[in-house]
Amino acid sequence: MPRKRARSGRREASPRKAEKWVYLLSEGKASMRDLLGGKGANLAEMTRIGLPVPPGLIVTTRACNAFLAADGFPPMMWDQVLAALRKVERLAGKRLGDAKNPLLVACRSGAKFSMPGMMDTVLNIGLNDAVAAGLIELTGDERFVFDSYRRLVQMFGTVVLNLPDEPFEDVLGAWRKKRSVANDADLAATDLQAITHEFKRIVRERAQQQFPEDPLEQLRLAIGAVFSSWNGKRAIDYRNAAGIAHDLGTAVNIVTMVFGNMGIDSGTGVVTTRNVTTGTPEIEGDYLTNAQGEDVVAGIRETKRIAALADEMPTIYKQFTKICRKLEKHYREVQDVEFTIERGKLWMLQTRDAKRSAVAAVRIAVDLAKERLITREEAVARVKPEHVDYFLHPQFDPAERASAKARGDAIATGLNVSPGAASGALAFDADTAERLGLREKKPVIMVRPETKPDDVHGMLAAQGILTSRGGRTSHAALVARQFGKPAVVGVLAMEVDVARRELKVGGRTLREGDDVSIDGTTGEVFAGNLKTVIPDFNEPHLLTLLGWADRIRKLGVWANADYPRDAERARAYGAEGIGLVRTEHMFFETNRLPHVQRMILAQDDTSRADAIGKLLPFQRDDFIGLFKAMDGLPVTIRLIDPPLHEFLPSHDALQKAVTELETRHRLHDDAGGTQTAALLGELSSKRALLDAVESMREQNPMLGLRGVRLGIHMPALVRMQVRAIFEAACFCAKAGVKVKPKIMIPLTAISTELKVERELLEDEAKQVLKEQGLVPSQLAYEFGTMIEVPRAAIAAERIAEYAEFFSFGTNDLTQTTFGISRDDAETGFLSEYLRKGILLRNPFATLDQTGVGVLMQMGVQLGRKRRPRLQVGICGEHGGDPASIDFCHRIGLNYVSCSPFRVPVARLAAAHAALADALR
Amino acid sequence: MPRKRARSGRREASPRKAEKWVYLLSEGKASMRDLLGGKGANLAEMTRIGLPVPPGLIVTTRACNAFLAADGFPPMMWDQVLAALRKVERLAGKRLGDAKNPLLVACRSGAKFSMPGMMDTVLNIGLNDAVAAGLIELTGDERFVFDSYRRLVQMFGTVVLNLPDEPFEDVLGAWRKKRSVANDADLAATDLQAITHEFKRIVRERAQQQFPEDPLEQLRLAIGAVFSSWNGKRAIDYRNAAGIAHDLGTAVNIVTMVFGNMGIDSGTGVVTTRNVTTGTPEIEGDYLTNAQGEDVVAGIRETKRIAALADEMPTIYKQFTKICRKLEKHYREVQDVEFTIERGKLWMLQTRDAKRSAVAAVRIAVDLAKERLITREEAVARVKPEHVDYFLHPQFDPAERASAKARGDAIATGLNVSPGAASGALAFDADTAERLGLREKKPVIMVRPETKPDDVHGMLAAQGILTSRGGRTSHAALVARQFGKPAVVGVLAMEVDVARRELKVGGRTLREGDDVSIDGTTGEVFAGNLKTVIPDFNEPHLLTLLGWADRIRKLGVWANADYPRDAERARAYGAEGIGLVRTEHMFFETNRLPHVQRMILAQDDTSRADAIGKLLPFQRDDFIGLFKAMDGLPVTIRLIDPPLHEFLPSHDALQKAVTELETRHRLHDDAGGTQTAALLGELSSKRALLDAVESMREQNPMLGLRGVRLGIHMPALVRMQVRAIFEAACFCAKAGVKVKPKIMIPLTAISTELKVERELLEDEAKQVLKEQGLVPSQLAYEFGTMIEVPRAAIAAERIAEYAEFFSFGTNDLTQTTFGISRDDAETGFLSEYLRKGILLRNPFATLDQTGVGVLMQMGVQLGRKRRPRLQVGICGEHGGDPASIDFCHRIGLNYVSCSPFRVPVARLAAAHAALADALR
Repeated sequence: MPRKRARSGRREASPRKAEKWVYLLSEGKASMRDLLGGKGANLAEMTRIGLPVPPGLIVTTRACNAFLAADGFPPMMWDQVLAALRKVERLAGKRLGDAKNPLLVACRSGAKFSMPGMMDTVLNIGLNDAVAAGLIELTGDERFVFDSYRRLVQMFGTVVLNLPDEPFEDVLGAWRKKRSVANDADLAATDLQAITHEFKRIVRERAQQQFPEDPLEQLRLAIGAVFSSWNGKRAIDYRNAAGIAHDLGTAVNIVTMVFGNMGIDSGTGVVTTRNVTTGTPEIEGDYLTNAQGEDVVAGIRETKRIAALADEMPTIYKQFTKICRKLEKHYREVQDVEFTIERGKLWMLQTRDAKRSAVAAVRIAVDLAKERLITREEAVARVKPEHVDYFLHPQFDPAERASAKARGDAIATGLNVSPGAASGALAFDADTAERLGLREKKPVIMVRPETKPDDVHGMLAAQGILTSRGGRTSHAALVARQFGKPAVVGVLAMEVDVARRELKVGGRTLREGDDVSIDGTTGEVFAGNLKTVIPDFNEPHLLTLLGWADRIRKLGVWANADYPRDAERARAYGAEGIGLVRTEHMFFETNRLPHVQRMILAQDDTSRADAIGKLLPFQRDDFIGLFKAMDGLPVTIRLIDPPLHEFLPSHDALQKAVTELETRHRLHDDAGGTQTAALLGELSSKRALLDAVESMREQNPMLGLRGVRLGIHMPALVRMQVRAIFEAACFCAKAGVKVKPKIMIPLTAISTELKVERELLEDEAKQVLKEQGLVPSQLAYEFGTMIEVPRAAIAAERIAEYAEFFSFGTNDLTQTTFGISRDDAETGFLSEYLRKGILLRNPFATLDQTGVGVLMQMGVQLGRKRRPRLQVGICGEHGGDPASIDFCHRIGLNYVSCSPFRVPVARLAAAHAALADALR
Repeated sequence: MPRKRARSGRREASPRKAEKWVYLLSEGKASMRDLLGGKGANLAEMTRIGLPVPPGLIVTTRACNAFLAADGFPPMMWDQVLAALRKVERLAGKRLGDAKNPLLVACRSGAKFSMPGMMDTVLNIGLNDAVAAGLIELTGDERFVFDSYRRLVQMFGTVVLNLPDEPFEDVLGAWRKKRSVANDADLAATDLQAITHEFKRIVRERAQQQFPEDPLEQLRLAIGAVFSSWNGKRAIDYRNAAGIAHDLGTAVNIVTMVFGNMGIDSGTGVVTTRNVTTGTPEIEGDYLTNAQGEDVVAGIRETKRIAALADEMPTIYKQFTKICRKLEKHYREVQDVEFTIERGKLWMLQTRDAKRSAVAAVRIAVDLAKERLITREEAVARVKPEHVDYFLHPQFDPAERASAKARGDAIATGLNVSPGAASGALAFDADTAERLGLREKKPVIMVRPETKPDDVHGMLAAQGILTSRGGRTSHAALVARQFGKPAVVGVLAMEVDVARRELKVGGRTLREGDDVSIDGTTGEVFAGNLKTVIPDFNEPHLLTLLGWADRIRKLGVWANADYPRDAERARAYGAEGIGLVRTEHMFFETNRLPHVQRMILAQDDTSRADAIGKLLPFQRDDFIGLFKAMDGLPVTIRLIDPPLHEFLPSHDALQKAVTELETRHRLHDDAGGTQTAALLGELSSKRALLDAVESMREQNPMLGLRGVRLGIHMPALVRMQVRAIFEAACFCAKAGVKVKPKIMIPLTAISTELKVERELLEDEAKQVLKEQGLVPSQLAYEFGTMIEVPRAAIAAERIAEYAEFFSFGTNDLTQTTFGISRDDAETGFLSEYLRKGILLRNPFATLDQTGVGVLMQMGVQLGRKRRPRLQVGICGEHGGDPASIDFCHRIGLNYVSCSPFRVPVARLAAAHAALADALR
């Protein structure tokens, strides 16, 4: 009797009755993805809605797990395959191994999630010498039969028997050379027959076994090979990288072969129902006549654009476009389909949601919503933060591009498969790309003839991808789009010689390390390093989508900006306020630093006051610029935060200089009195400076005299800052600018600290208002504090007494909560922890929700307990990280504040958080 | 109609009916302390139980507040005083201002808490020229009358009119000189009459007003002066220092004068009902015949021991000792009493709980419990942690003392008023003592003729107090005992010349800054700096008391000890385990450091393993010693914690050396090749070391590569430590020692960190056990972790999965919770915060309960949620701080671990926590 198990909520068969391990395509549907894999479920779905799909069967993902657990076919599984096969034979009207009317089948893997490059496909199963002979008789096409046969042997050898591809390719190459042809398609039937024999020899010699003549044995071994490949190193690596569970298993699809290589009324193609590079609503893709599907994907032959099919086979084209529309409507999503035309009949071999570029993702989502296929919420949900981020990716400076062209540095054009511009040093393999890119931190362009799954680590480390072969659906293109890397592929004019580490194109030779620039948006390739610029953000679909996002999100999105130019950019990107102005950044400017140093080194209050006074006009001007840029929006100004010694010369350099001078003096380096006097003078002034620096030195400056502590210690300095803020605010207010200053006190740990500091500063503020003849109600200002040490979150109820707003400084809060110094750790033990899996994510990139997040939640709740309308934001780097933004939404923050370049991403991520929240 | 108010739960009179502001002594009792002040309530109580107390009245503390609020007598208050005065007059059978039968009264302040040094007492109110004449007639004692009269004028001038004391004392001094007498008592009646006149002149000239002849006016002004003195600077300062609320107010006691200066059958004394220096159960104190009370307290005349009274006035002595016994029984506490004998009649003028030395506090508490006057719990509750701490105070090395005596350095002997030995530089005033003691951190002995309330800050900064005048109840003695400072007072042989900053005694002159040593236990004073030793801990009363405490407390008391000798001491002091062995302390020993450095600088695993191997036997021997010392008790060993660069030479010193060598080389310092080669060799090795140090340098080492991070980074090192622990444990176990090792992993922030580390280390442990032929059950060991960063407390539930015990490292936890680097802050902004009142207590000395404490509570609760029997302790410095111990008790810790010297204090404090808990 079957019994229920809690796990997965699925009903498992009792051991006594075998589980249903095999489904006919007609028995499945799209929602059975978990069991049938993505590819299989979609084949079943297409069958169900009446599209022309060749008959077939699916061995389930659970069968895969059972197979792997049993290390072979468990009882009854193979019997189920045979039973289903009989039904497929009936549907196809052919029989496997029947020389008179043979059924050939393809065997493909198909997991729940598409795993590009698993490539464990075996076509033409069912062929053997007898069947081949029969098939020649049946089709009269000897060339086709031997082409199919040699493919079976080659795929069987490489996929099932794990032989290398090279010996097979060498044979093909030798024959092409012998016959002086460019393509395998131009080889004659007899050539292919000979090649088939040579391939069988390769199998025999290399695998120490005969190529199995029994079609059922072929099938059985192929299914086993697909299952086993689930645990292949490549697959495991990919799943680890993509975060896919290892226990999902893969299904196996056994589908009746249809042949695109049966002459000029045959063909095969790979098409997306919309343009996945630009998003334009027109079908887009490539096809080849007289070819099998793998030829298109592999990008070995130059393909034709799908539009050409309209001329070559108008009826088929019409039928096909109708199917595409139907699929899009059915799936409510752009599809990536494979089809084959066999002697004038169209067969659909695959459909799946299409991968797309960032530009296309945005446009498609907006268009589908406008076409009412999906809701606006769905449109927003479908666009990923990375997609929006793309629009902030660099592009080439138009002038640079023009002059590069004028110089003749535009060396080639290829397929523009993943947009964005990138420049860097050429790296000819993945390891080199990784070494240069990750370890030496150089911008790198990885160049390959074509890429394979083994190359992904190099692609991730590179700024851009360049290949001489491959199409829009090639591995290189897919991966590049997925990871938002600019890529140009299929640059056929380009010869990539990996062994010699050089690239020849148009008579020029570029070597490893030479600079190259690629434009994934246009497909152009340039010699040299072209300067890149940030793209225009005003793409109408993007603006529409972000507008929709804005209406969905609950979180405000503010920006961290220190200068008016940053504030302007932030505002253009949609920031609704400035969440963090780091006033000390202004102190480092060359015309100010001398005053800052005088202030720090002052021996008495008068000279300190004088130096501080000199800084006032600078700061006032800074604030005037910010207030003007943010007219009508809040500007949160954090008072000086870092320890003062950061503004002084480095201790080590000073100590070196002093030691050197002392040594020279001791050795009587010079005889003349004048020189000695000069040396002594220098020594004495350097020594004084060194003494000052030493007196201010701290063991752990991160935990030292900074933030509010500094303000309490040197009140004149923060009073000056507040005076500058309010003088600027009054000036702007009088000029008609709507000013909303928020004064933020950093590093509060104790409520009394904030009380004392706020009283002092509000005093100064009121004094300025009085001087300027304004009353507080004319200029709405607020005082608040950073929450950036654990104690502040714990004491938030008392601290909220003196703060109208909180802003989580999660960089510092992460440091103190973990007891980790970011500067020291990120290049040290933290990366060791990430490598060893002790930490899954870098807590400085993505909020540590179960540690730091608990404190944040305390801070919000306790703060609002005292002050229910307390405004709470975040201004650490996490404010621009989507996962962290989701958390901020959940704990009820009012806004996130991030770098201007992250503002659009944050707007989208905040909408995602709201949408996800609606589902919780 | 009276109505109830919530505040203080007291019934307040309605505004229409005047409050009862004045009480007769016979109307009050001891429990009315809040309203009548301590002195007044006790006078009333003594009256109530039938002791001989002169009739009197009390103006209440609430009257004081009303007076201060109204800035004068509010309506009806003075009328109530007059009405009560009439009753007192009836009881005394005399009338104020009646020249025929005059009543004289004393007016004294009396707040709820005794405030030594308020001194706002006016005696002999009621005297004027007419009354004086009548009194002479009545008593026939002209000398007595004018002595009383001049005292009234003097006190009235200084206390009521705030005149300086000097002009009055100058007059007295001039008369003593004129008459060549040492004491005022030896001046004749006519002298005193003349002096009275001169005093009146001083009042007239200095205060610009006549001394009031109207006795009621005298009384009225005196009461007002007492009330006003509540807000005097001295009083406010004292209350601030002692933490007494400023709104308590003081009562005024108006009591019929009795005179101890009416001849040889009169006298006055100040006595404690037991010896408050040693605790011996016998009355102890001083008296003077023919003197007024203030003379004894001021310590101006040499007093007699109370025992002498038995001979001089046997009946009175008998009556007095009986009263003392009655008072002790009645109050269940040792009393400090004042009495006066007026012409053979004993009057009790004051009783209060006696202040006492630490030794006396312990003995008295134990004795009272044994006498069944109090319970053992009360006895434990009455002894303060400071009292126990005293027993761990330094005493002079007996040999040093003997040789100092032999050298003739024993320069004087005084009153042994506060025990303990101290040596230091002489400071002649409080400011100097503070400067040397607090700022320059020198040991200081503060020397004064006598001390005043203004001197307290200097006394606190000093190691010990030395005065030439004053008695057992002098200001110096009281304060010294209260704060546990060794003190010798009343060294009459010593001349203290503050102006010349010198001290003359026995022909020797010591100057400011010269070393002196005092023994507050014996009263001896030595020239020079005598070495001090820790006293013998085995005082029987102390052991008894601590035994009682042990039975009361719930918290275990463990010790932090790194070496066997520390462990032995801790055990002798009652430690029940070692809560923290800092293994790295052992690394700094000279025979080990080279190996440690080799280990750190090793370029490869083999040479590192070699260096680590060299350390193994050392560590093993360390642990063997500890296990033996703690036979049967747990020993918690923390694995290496600090960053490794702490074991290398200082960066700055290396950089200096390298720069100097480089400069010399560049300047061709020497001509000879050999020397150049030597220089270059040294330069190259120093540079290599500098490079290594620089590569390990961290911006914030506190938050860097240390603790468990180091263990994960360099597993061989911690494996060696665990091997050493287990080899030692096996060795000891085989030798019959009962070993309970607890391996403690420091600085855990993430549960996976602990998991990984624990697995590694337990592996090593099991391997050692296997090698040694023991099974885990034969050697009960545990693994646990420090909780010392906020995240560990937050993640305690997950961390407890891998820890059998937690130990709060509250030093680090305080640092990270506040974001404060202790090393940098305690001498910097933290002391500024304490000065400015932003922090009330140093959180590194006393646990920050509302911040760090919240995390601790989380840690305990979450940890026990996962592991109900999780053992939790504390090993930060707070483990020895009584307030922190109370908190640890309340949050349910299993034990506190502190320095061996704090163990006895912690035992008592833990008992106090349990007792306080029973009251909550």
